Amino acid sequence: MKTNDTILLGHGSGGRLTNELIQNLFVRYFNNETLSGMTDSALLEIGHGAIAFTTDSFVVDPLVFPGGDIGKLAIAGTVNDLAVSGAEPLYLTAAFIIEEGFSMKLLEQIVASMADEAAKAGVQIVSGDTKVVERGKCDKLFINTSGIGRQREGAGKVASGCDIKPGDAIIVNGFIGDHGMAVMSARKQINVQAGILSDCASLNQMIDEVWIKSGGIRFMRDATRGGLGAVSSELVSGKPWGIDLFEEKIPLRQEVRGMCEVLGFDPVYVANEGKVVMVVDQQHASKALDVMRSHVLGIHAEIIGTVTTAHPGRVWMKTSVGGSRIVDLPAGEQLPRIC
Amino acid sequence: MKTNDTILLGHGSGGRLTNELIQNLFVRYFNNETLSGMTDSALLEIGHGAIAFTTDSFVVDPLVFPGGDIGKLAIAGTVNDLAVSGAEPLYLTAAFIIEEGFSMKLLEQIVASMADEAAKAGVQIVSGDTKVVERGKCDKLFINTSGIGRQREGAGKVASGCDIKPGDAIIVNGFIGDHGMAVMSARKQINVQAGILSDCASLNQMIDEVWIKSGGIRFMRDATRGGLGAVSSELVSGKPWGIDLFEEKIPLRQEVRGMCEVLGFDPVYVANEGKVVMVVDQQHASKALDVMRSHVLGIHAEIIGTVTTAHPGRVWMKTSVGGSRIVDLPAGEQLPRIC
Repeated sequence: MKTNDTILLGHGSGGRLTNELIQNLFVRYFNNETLSGMTDSALLEIGHGAIAFTTDSFVVDPLVFPGGDIGKLAIAGTVNDLAVSGAEPLYLTAAFIIEEGFSMKLLEQIVASMADEAAKAGVQIVSGDTKVVERGKCDKLFINTSGIGRQREGAGKVASGCDIKPGDAIIVNGFIGDHGMAVMSARKQINVQAGILSDCASLNQMIDEVWIKSGGIRFMRDATRGGLGAVSSELVSGKPWGIDLFEEKIPLRQEVRGMCEVLGFDPVYVANEGKVVMVVDQQHASKALDVMRSHVLGIHAEIIGTVTTAHPGRVWMKTSVGGSRIVDLPAGEQLPRIC
Repeated sequence: MKTNDTILLGHGSGGRLTNELIQNLFVRYFNNETLSGMTDSALLEIGHGAIAFTTDSFVVDPLVFPGGDIGKLAIAGTVNDLAVSGAEPLYLTAAFIIEEGFSMKLLEQIVASMADEAAKAGVQIVSGDTKVVERGKCDKLFINTSGIGRQREGAGKVASGCDIKPGDAIIVNGFIGDHGMAVMSARKQINVQAGILSDCASLNQMIDEVWIKSGGIRFMRDATRGGLGAVSSELVSGKPWGIDLFEEKIPLRQEVRGMCEVLGFDPVYVANEGKVVMVVDQQHASKALDVMRSHVLGIHAEIIGTVTTAHPGRVWMKTSVGGSRIVDLPAGEQLPRIC
């Protein structure tokens, strides 16, 4: 970097400092022809057909946490929003709101992390924006990513979940609650033995595999804010069917369970950043599970529940001792600024 | 609004409060089928061909200023970024970062303003995101809008400006500096007689008219941060031609000139939010000017300069008394948080 050690208000001015920042940092790391064209909008050929379009702002605190940082999160989060809508993620934008005085070195680390995750996910960052606000007017750094993807055949039905039927299986691709507890451990400086890492990851390639090799996907959503609990209770809302979740089948690390107990959280509501909840028809469920388990991001996948007509509009958690409790939409905030 | 009077952390939780906010506010005002589908991504049919994709975050201070607010600005800004790239703006996303305790009434006013400007510009807000941060962790409200548009035939050349030739005319669609000085007057609580209003407006329909009825457009850019000065000096950078600007032709309100003098700003660098700098070939320049002037947003349009080989890579401002000065890219920040 030829520029200063810290971000100045001038880096958001649209003048020379802004151009230097764009060239020396964003264009260098996000390296692609569209971005280096420096036009007001990225001009893209996406071929015929329908597209998916999504946006997400990231305000996670702290910016760097075990297993990831706000940059990795900002890429994976938007890639996942596209992927669970049944689209192939293609292009992302990245918009930064930076506090004056922010470390240029940390910004570079985060931008490098974005570039790295974008490469892994196979997407390009094609347009961006930088704003700088005065010291004390934002908390270090916020990143917005928006993304577009190419809709696959049948994506509309999968995105809306309109084909879900009683008997369908609920699959999750691995341990829940890792992201929330990793961020909490960084925030509270809790020293957990055998440290919990965020599960932050782009799921599009694993979802691709299931889509192509198994099929039968009727719905997908990434279980971010509000966790598995929020996804399942939103899903059943107003529907003529409900969901049974089997507590003993839900993958949960011992360390995460322990930390949740200590802090008073229910892991079912804790945020994930690399977990998809997939509804798959009965016939394809075990094949889908096999395909998922053969991918590095789905090794610990499990069938954790089923769609049922027994209690329409409700999610029931069946416990190992034969009890059951209702999983409702959480009212408020368990963990602010988890993403 | 059935919800609280102020924004709570829970409104960003992904739980019940978030859903209420989305339904009672965003879905109600941005009313369209895609958004009310509540899928993770908007699924859109845009037909065959290429698209334009852009993003912008808005951090303007104050949130409401004479002639507009952050909501109107957030729509017009992204619509304009698409329009100047030669695209027809179609769909926008809207992502909110809100400070805990923010007034629900003011949020509603701003969302209504976004809906209003989107309707005027003929675009739909199809996807969104809401994050809430603790009191003191952001300055009231930041909005990101991203947008996609359908590329028109020839848009690629216009976006890159690769067809610009010596002799081309530089046209601006009216008074410069209004937005910057309107925001400054609100910020400094300066009481300017005959108050200056922001020029904040979506320019896509005026640009459409010129594109269709005149043609000959070789480049466009909206003169936002850094103003006319930044746009023109960026444009000539590294090129085998330069630009002459004619000072007496540049539309400038007496009040804006006066306020710039008092505050020590050069109006050529002051931000606009409803001004396009258009490069048009000689043959089409007067027709383009006529078409522009027949549109309400271009009444005061003028040919303000010309592309020249006399000083490659440089912008010269020719003054009315026969002098001239170089217009360079501003280094730093004249007016932080102007958009």
